This record gives sequence, C-alpha cells and structure tokens, in this order.
Amino acid sequence: MSLSVKILGCGSALPTTVRNASAQILKHNQKLFLIDCGEYTQVLMRKYGIRFSALKHIFISHLHGDHFYGIFGLLSSLSLMGNTGELHIHCPEKLKYILESENSPLDTTVLGYQLCFDALKPSEVNLAYEDQKIEVYSVPLKHRIQTWGFIFKEKPAELKNIRKECIEKYSLSISEIVRIKEGCDLRLEDGTIIENSELTLEMPPTKSYAYISDTMPSQSVCKAVEGVDVLYHEATYEAALAERASQTFHSTSLQAAEIAKNANVGKLVLGHFSSRYTDTQILENEAKTIFPNTICAYDGLEFEI
Amino acid sequence: MSLSVKILGCGSALPTTVRNASAQILKHNQKLFLIDCGEYTQVLMRKYGIRFSALKHIFISHLHGDHFYGIFGLLSSLSLMGNTGELHIHCPEKLKYILESENSPLDTTVLGYQLCFDALKPSEVNLAYEDQKIEVYSVPLKHRIQTWGFIFKEKPAELKNIRKECIEKYSLSISEIVRIKEGCDLRLEDGTIIENSELTLEMPPTKSYAYISDTMPSQSVCKAVEGVDVLYHEATYEAALAERASQTFHSTSLQAAEIAKNANVGKLVLGHFSSRYTDTQILENEAKTIFPNTICAYDGLEFEI
Repeated sequence: MSLSVKILGCGSALPTTVRNASAQILKHNQKLFLIDCGEYTQVLMRKYGIRFSALKHIFISHLHGDHFYGIFGLLSSLSLMGNTGELHIHCPEKLKYILESENSPLDTTVLGYQLCFDALKPSEVNLAYEDQKIEVYSVPLKHRIQTWGFIFKEKPAELKNIRKECIEKYSLSISEIVRIKEGCDLRLEDGTIIENSELTLEMPPTKSYAYISDTMPSQSVCKAVEGVDVLYHEATYEAALAERASQTFHSTSLQAAEIAKNANVGKLVLGHFSSRYTDTQILENEAKTIFPNTICAYDGLEFEI
Repeated sequence: MSLSVKILGCGSALPTTVRNASAQILKHNQKLFLIDCGEYTQVLMRKYGIRFSALKHIFISHLHGDHFYGIFGLLSSLSLMGNTGELHIHCPEKLKYILESENSPLDTTVLGYQLCFDALKPSEVNLAYEDQKIEVYSVPLKHRIQTWGFIFKEKPAELKNIRKECIEKYSLSISEIVRIKEGCDLRLEDGTIIENSELTLEMPPTKSYAYISDTMPSQSVCKAVEGVDVLYHEATYEAALAERASQTFHSTSLQAAEIAKNANVGKLVLGHFSSRYTDTQILENEAKTIFPNTICAYDGLEFEI
C-alpha cells in the first residue's frame, strides 16, 4: 500500500511568493485527502497534476483564513469541472454555516455535487473518518480558536498473504486457502497442526501520518501522535521567539522537536513557517539538536511514508 | 500626471497556473485603486511590489468568485500588516452582507482599520468616487448577475501653468499670476488685453481608462466608454464560440473589437480569457481585423495611459 504526502503550502498567516498558505494532499493508494485549503489551493492542485475528480474528502483544521480561504474557489471550480457525487468536508461546525448561509460567498445550492459536512468533535481524540483501508482521527489542538490536528492510520490488511510454496507442499484446497488467509492454522490428515505463521507472510507494517497545525506544544497531542511514522508539526517560529510563539498559540522549532522525541515518532516535518523566514535552515538546525530525523517542509515537497 | 495599469490576473472562472483570476491595480500618481480581487491577489501584489499601505479603494465588479474570492485574504493581511485608517470598497451591496454577516469568513470587527462600503447603483452610469484629481464612474454591464464596469477619468488641472517668459515680459505681480493661472486675461496699464491663451501653456490632455468585465456586448456600455484612451474589455471566447459567449453572457474578441471601434477608443486591451486559451494570439488576431490597436492582456502586463 502506498501512503504519500504532497505539500501544497506550508506558510502561515501571511502567504508570500515563496510559500503559500496551508494545504496538503495525502494520497492513500488511489484515494486523495486534502488537508486544509489555504488560498490558491485549486491552482496548486493543477500545478502538481492532482486529479480534481479523485478528491472526495477535505479536512479543515480550523477557521483562520490561511487554512480555508481557498475552499470557495475550489468548491466552485469542482462544480464547473463537472464533478458529481458526494464531497465530504470534515471541519469545524461553523464552516457549514459560512458556506450554507444566505450570505455565503458561494451559492452551494447550484453545485453539481452533494456537499456533506462532518463536524469535528470538540473534545478528545475521535474517529473522524474510516474506510476499509484507513482511519482518520481528529485531535483537539491548543490554539486561539478551536483547532484540530488529523492522524491518518492505515488499517492492517484483512487477509494475510499465503506463502506460495505452501499451496503445493500441503496440496491446499480453495477453502483451506481462504481460512489460512483469514488467520486459521492448518490441520493435516494425520492430525498435525501447522501454525498460521508458518503458512503466511508477515503482514507489512501499517503506516501513519499526523498533521498538527496550528498549536502550542501540547502533552495531549504528544500522546495522540505516539509512534506515528511521520509527524508534520507546526514550527512557526525559531526558539528565540518562544514568547511570541506562546502569545500567538504557536510552537517553536524546539518545541516541535520535543513533541517528536517524546512521542517517539519516526520522522519530523516542520511547517507553517512565519513569513519572516525566507530560509528555514535555522528552524531545521534547532530541531535537529533534539530530534535529528527532522526536515523542513517546502511548497512542492512530496514524501512517501 | 501619471496613470498606469498593472494586470495581476486576466483569467476567467477557472484560474490556471498561467493566468490568475481577475485583478488589476490602477495607479494614478501615488494613489492606488484595486479593480476586482480574484483569489491570490494579495500574493500577486507582493510579487509586483505594490505597497499594501497605499491601497485605500477597492472596486469589485460583481460577485462571481473569480472577481472577489481574494478579498478575504487581502483584508485579513492588510490588518495583520498594521494598516489603519479607512479602506473603501465600492461594490455590489451584497458584499457588505457577506463580509459583515455573523457567518462571514472574516471577522471584520477585529480589523485594525475601518471598512467603508459604497454600494454601486444599479441603473445608469454613476459617479462612484472622486477626489481632486480623478473621477470613477460605475457602468451597469449585461451579465448573468448584476455587474458593473468602471471608468477612470482624470480631471483637468484646476490651475493653468503660466509661460515663464511672460512673468518678466509683463512684470507680473503675484496677484496677476494667480488670476492668470485661474484663467483670466491680463489687462495692461495702457488698456491692452492679453488673452489668457497667450500667457499660459496648453493644458495637458486628461487620460481615461475603462474596465469592462464581465459582459455581453452592450450598446449602453459602448456609449459610456466613448473616447476613452484605453478600454479593457473582456473577450472570454474567440468568434467561433459566439453562441457559448452569448449563453454565458460573455463577449467574443470580435464583439469587444466592435465596441472599441464604435466607441472610438484609443486602444483596446482584451482580457478575461477562458482557461481553454493557453495562447491568446487567435483572439488578438481576430480583434485586429476590426480594431487594429488591440493587444491581449497577460498577468504582469503594465501599461501607461
């Protein structure tokens, strides 16, 4: 199974010519998930060749403009481009009212597809979405307004892969193969038991990704992202601006790295950089003193998990 | 006096990587006017080095997303950047409700400056704004929803420039100079009358610019833009797509050129191109068969009037 992330924008409140407002595409096999939708997201999707018609789920972390002002244009264009079916928006409840009010910037009644709103739950970690292959959890963050992070976790495959050589060795019937794939042991005619683990391949590890922006450092977030393969954590400021970070309910590079270390994640990707940073090397260097496997996001970065 | 226009975006409903949604900056001396505000306008203003603090007047033609979805981000950023004073938005009345409603995407109550809404009048050509140097008229267009064009007209200078050599020749006093600048003739001691035109320089011609987008070809528009120096007229489609243009209340290149010719304008700038045109040469060539002094706009184009 393939799980990858494409950064469309990793800027913060003031988008610039080098860094767009927040937006990411998570691709799981052929399924796309848009995480946040800053201004210009629709054009960035075109730029990076992302199929509009494959987008059926959008996750919005919170209602600061740099995380959702692109949604009006995107929803409008999806309709102009002939999209049909359902489009699910997992978001703060208020976004439904913004989009569906009499004074909405967008007339949602004329869209060619069905908008479905799934309001994020305000307390604790909650399952926000699942399908056969993946679960998405919403995680309350610690910001000036209600904000959520999202954790994407692959589900383990339901059926195991059988070792090809065993089929011949034990002359397995179709029904035996099905049971073995489901996890059963094999009982031979002489009563010998062959354990399932001898008959099947080891399950590939499931992968996980956490998107945590915007937030102050938070112990409950740290607990929620425990052990994820890749953690995207906001690092709006460098360590010297910790007071500014605290006042604005953001994190520094060092604070993001502490979370990554304490949560024992595989890799840390920093993002949501203040517009003061043209070069983000200082943030990466600071974070690496605490958590070496750190990189800085940039617009256009794509990584496999 | 200097009057120039910078095209930030000349695309239409579907912005692309080569053409942004509608937005232009008109600069008159040191004063800036933003005409329409498609998504991404704030970043394009940064890209082209346009001073945010000098922007005090925004004109919005109509409430289709490609003409105003950038306003939420721009207004938000203007506040974050510390702008104060008044910001006037000359717009369809509904934009006020969109921005000030309980479910607005932007909390206008926390902006650091004062938003002033000037609703465009629905019928006839109206003076929408004037200062000492310029007048702006709103012109009702012929589109699917209420839409206005804008005509910017320099006012003639209030005082004439005196011919320097006359000051010495007639030993003019300060009060005589003032009266001559105001347009009076000079009466010499022997009773001779020197006409004002002999004492003053010819007034420089006033300049004018019309922004006409989105619209079907309209005779009342043609009349309103009579004799402007530069006419920006939408040409969403080529002539072969006249039926499509008509259905969607847009114009073809030939129709725009007919308006330019019949209105006897100085120059025609085509814009608001359908996303199907990567290259707009066909539109320019078509228009030139009727009105030779035609160019196609492109994002980043700047022209003096």
